[in-house]
Amino acid sequence: MSNFEIVREKLDQAVQVLREKKVDLWITLVRETRQVTDPCLDLLLGFDLTWQSALMISRTGERIAIVGRYDADNVERLGGYTTVIGYDRSFREPLLSHLTRLNPRKVALNFSESDPAADGLTHGMFRVLAKMIADQECASRLISAEEVIGALRGRKSPSEVARIQAAIRETQAIFTRIASQIRPDVTEWEIAAWFQDVAAQEGMGLAWEAEYCPAVTAGPDSSIGHAMPGDSVLRRGNLLQVDFGVSKDGFVSDLQRTWYLLDEGETAPPAEVQAGWQAARAALEAGRAMLRPGVRGWEVDQAARESLTQAGYPEYMHAFGHHIGRSAHDGATVLGPRWERYGTSIEGMVEVRNVFAIELGVQVPEYGYIGCEENVIVTAEGAEYLSDPQLDLWCI
Amino acid sequence: MSNFEIVREKLDQAVQVLREKKVDLWITLVRETRQVTDPCLDLLLGFDLTWQSALMISRTGERIAIVGRYDADNVERLGGYTTVIGYDRSFREPLLSHLTRLNPRKVALNFSESDPAADGLTHGMFRVLAKMIADQECASRLISAEEVIGALRGRKSPSEVARIQAAIRETQAIFTRIASQIRPDVTEWEIAAWFQDVAAQEGMGLAWEAEYCPAVTAGPDSSIGHAMPGDSVLRRGNLLQVDFGVSKDGFVSDLQRTWYLLDEGETAPPAEVQAGWQAARAALEAGRAMLRPGVRGWEVDQAARESLTQAGYPEYMHAFGHHIGRSAHDGATVLGPRWERYGTSIEGMVEVRNVFAIELGVQVPEYGYIGCEENVIVTAEGAEYLSDPQLDLWCI
Repeated sequence: MSNFEIVREKLDQAVQVLREKKVDLWITLVRETRQVTDPCLDLLLGFDLTWQSALMISRTGERIAIVGRYDADNVERLGGYTTVIGYDRSFREPLLSHLTRLNPRKVALNFSESDPAADGLTHGMFRVLAKMIADQECASRLISAEEVIGALRGRKSPSEVARIQAAIRETQAIFTRIASQIRPDVTEWEIAAWFQDVAAQEGMGLAWEAEYCPAVTAGPDSSIGHAMPGDSVLRRGNLLQVDFGVSKDGFVSDLQRTWYLLDEGETAPPAEVQAGWQAARAALEAGRAMLRPGVRGWEVDQAARESLTQAGYPEYMHAFGHHIGRSAHDGATVLGPRWERYGTSIEGMVEVRNVFAIELGVQVPEYGYIGCEENVIVTAEGAEYLSDPQLDLWCI
Repeated sequence: MSNFEIVREKLDQAVQVLREKKVDLWITLVRETRQVTDPCLDLLLGFDLTWQSALMISRTGERIAIVGRYDADNVERLGGYTTVIGYDRSFREPLLSHLTRLNPRKVALNFSESDPAADGLTHGMFRVLAKMIADQECASRLISAEEVIGALRGRKSPSEVARIQAAIRETQAIFTRIASQIRPDVTEWEIAAWFQDVAAQEGMGLAWEAEYCPAVTAGPDSSIGHAMPGDSVLRRGNLLQVDFGVSKDGFVSDLQRTWYLLDEGETAPPAEVQAGWQAARAALEAGRAMLRPGVRGWEVDQAARESLTQAGYPEYMHAFGHHIGRSAHDGATVLGPRWERYGTSIEGMVEVRNVFAIELGVQVPEYGYIGCEENVIVTAEGAEYLSDPQLDLWCI
């Protein structure tokens, strides 16, 4: 399926979501999207727009694109929009005339306090619109599109799942290939460069910013998380954790794998390392067992978090899970704790065909960090692995 | 100079701009910047942030970064921030405590109705902040940071200019290299692929989105502007115009070059093609002659536009010039006409050390499109070419 076909599929799905959510009109307002992009543009168009532009999707099935004249041809070529207007001087007149004609009772805009993927409308563009419609009835009918966007982005079509799965397969192949190169005395930087070189050779992008993709934690003295790989040198008796994903045909993977470098005379990892691994794996499975249609994001996180803390380990300082798709943090419902920074994103409900990265970790003093992260799809029965899960620590 | 050094240079410059503009505090508020980035992040940081984050620059010289705990190490490594706070649960407390302590009379935020490069604050994040400070004095002291950002982004440091110049040199070398391959019967797609392949071989990125970089117009039947290259086949007796730029070490170029394919028996382009070229070149020079410190953006555009229309050609349907730098449309003052879609961006004043792409074009019926685009730097005396300007049509 081509990129254009995937976008057209998503536009059809958008109309269905508007009907389900009883939203009359959804407007995506953007400009110069190379500089500030709205994440919804990937769903609704798949390329950039330059001048002030409005993509209007109506629950009647109409899809109206009002774009600068130089962008109009490209929108025509995409197909999927019932009306394409290329303007020269201002988008005010076509925007207002379609708004008046459609007379929507609810107009959804891309702002959200909780979901970054539904918050692509800039404050400046909001002000442009607010002034433009100040004396229109619809000025008082503006609502957040976060529910519409969350459903549209979160419910992956079969072609979207196929692309995510392809990215996961490539990532796993890279992990396998690089495993054979891992040895004592290499630095985090060197290991990171191996991953990036292979991805580049294979013509793939990275799933997130190059500085942290992969994130590499070698031994007990390295910082974890989104930290850039540093000068820490991998030693025998160290844990090595790598968080990596690729971007292939516009879709990403996000996996962590953990190795233990056997020390002189060791035939298996020390007991505390093994215990840490078992606790992390068990907590990941506890979260996965809770991950099914109809549960709230925080409930899934709670199951994993309690499993870990009841095993005597400190809680992880991040969310258990996040959507993946076109992006490694693909918006909508977060499987996270009820902390202020997650806003209401963790109150969202898990749905069929959601694809998540689920992850957590354990620090083992004097050895290093253990990270478990897998990718799963939600079906009517529960969460099925899309990745081949790492069931045991990999020893070198 | 390293990327980190360029950012630290820009942070120092930011404090100077705040003093000049009499703005007490400038706050850049972002989250998940892989999804929705604020263009100012390139100036202030140079890498992405994940959780809700505030970069606060005070005219006192203080620079405070409040970021998620996993991003804090990277900000520390950058240097340039006097205080780095890595939080776990919410950025509310550190943000409010620093706001209270600094007690600013004017707080600039990144929203702008006219300048996309100064409009990186999302409406959702604006609402998060507005609620958070609702009962604070500074709630009524919020202003647009567009003037601060315009000055900071537009006044290129010597190291920034050196990087832009390197990108221009590479682009010119690619134009020269590909000129030898141009021949009748190739399609726009093929020509575009040549440019992209050479850039990739040389390890450079494209200055804008791959679909239009380069934009290629072959012959009289092709659409111009941001259009994707199509199936149009280049013929003898056609004009060929290419709009292309590369991204090298984080900075870009943006140039157009035009060829004419001599028809059987021709030794020079036909008179109407030559007349079109002369008119376009003369208009470009008329604009460049007006481009100097202290003039308004629209005045420069007007000089070029009038030159072209007085020569009997239709006016071009875009702006004459735009800043280039980290991006091919680098925000701030636009050298454009007083059309609504340019807002107040064309009222901005040209300053020393601004770097612009200046461009315009002429359609010659039955032959094709002529585009002139060069890159210039503004000095106290006027606008000097950074590119080697194309003075004549290139014949093949």
